[in-house]
Amino acid sequence: MEEKYLRTISEAKGSFLVLRQDEVMLSNGRKTKRDVILHPGAVAVLAVTPKEEIILVKQYRYPVGKVTYEIPAGKLEEGEEPLMTAKRELAEETGYRAKEWEKLTAFYAAPGYANEVIHLFWAENLQRTEARPDPDEIIDYEKISIKQAYEQVLAGEIDDAKTIMGILWLVNSSRYLDL
Amino acid sequence: MEEKYLRTISEAKGSFLVLRQDEVMLSNGRKTKRDVILHPGAVAVLAVTPKEEIILVKQYRYPVGKVTYEIPAGKLEEGEEPLMTAKRELAEETGYRAKEWEKLTAFYAAPGYANEVIHLFWAENLQRTEARPDPDEIIDYEKISIKQAYEQVLAGEIDDAKTIMGILWLVNSSRYLDL
Repeated sequence: MEEKYLRTISEAKGSFLVLRQDEVMLSNGRKTKRDVILHPGAVAVLAVTPKEEIILVKQYRYPVGKVTYEIPAGKLEEGEEPLMTAKRELAEETGYRAKEWEKLTAFYAAPGYANEVIHLFWAENLQRTEARPDPDEIIDYEKISIKQAYEQVLAGEIDDAKTIMGILWLVNSSRYLDL
Repeated sequence: MEEKYLRTISEAKGSFLVLRQDEVMLSNGRKTKRDVILHPGAVAVLAVTPKEEIILVKQYRYPVGKVTYEIPAGKLEEGEEPLMTAKRELAEETGYRAKEWEKLTAFYAAPGYANEVIHLFWAENLQRTEARPDPDEIIDYEKISIKQAYEQVLAGEIDDAKTIMGILWLVNSSRYLDL
């Protein structure tokens, strides 16, 4: 089924993304074009309090023109281990540090047109410090019960892919049995 | 929290994606740059058989360089209602038509840098016809039990965001109680 790279038709850089258009050969010999977004990869964190609340970051998302509630997340920096990124992003965006970390999975955000991998972590045993967001991030955070978050997913009020996935993952998890 | 558009620094077109880099003003008056991928929007379909199996499409994904298993999905065409796209994509990719359709939710694939909305549908009461994939799609499909799909999610073998989300959604759903 493999598609073979033939040539790059165009390549454009944004502030951190690259859009490349490649000509490829399909396994049946036919040629076609593929758009590829090059992305450095990212992490996302399910940070759970002892009261079975999760931490959601509230921020304006320019590409969709609205404020969203998302689990803390951020891009990998060059050479950075995903767990380090996860710890850094949780601290920067919410001020929390966690003593217990577990990697749940890694997945492709949009394998049809992007190479982005998102590493999903679970964090517990949280300790409050001071949030230090990036200067170009204006963010706030809220703690809401996993049950309420699940209801907001079903109601379409939480509408970010990785956040929906993470909340469903928690609801399925045997860790939180009293839901 | 709103970010105001100031100007477009660059814009590049791929075969169906557009990468735009905008300068914006944050609510604190600071200026920054935002990458935005313009995407036509998409649908994804949880097609479930009477044996509680779901249909997964197997295809080579050039951007990630591997074969993935994903729920049937595809881009909206200009002016097309998402339900129509869902019916078309299910039929094209798998040959199945469904008598019962329900929209589960709509979500942003990557609101930090893309405007893509994915409409998630559930389809039951399936009838087999002939698959007619796009000429540049070499695809196959498999039916696997929801339970097995869930195990493959937990094992990291199913690694596409919308597919993981959809399987978790089914597992949580009260429709399939015997899991």
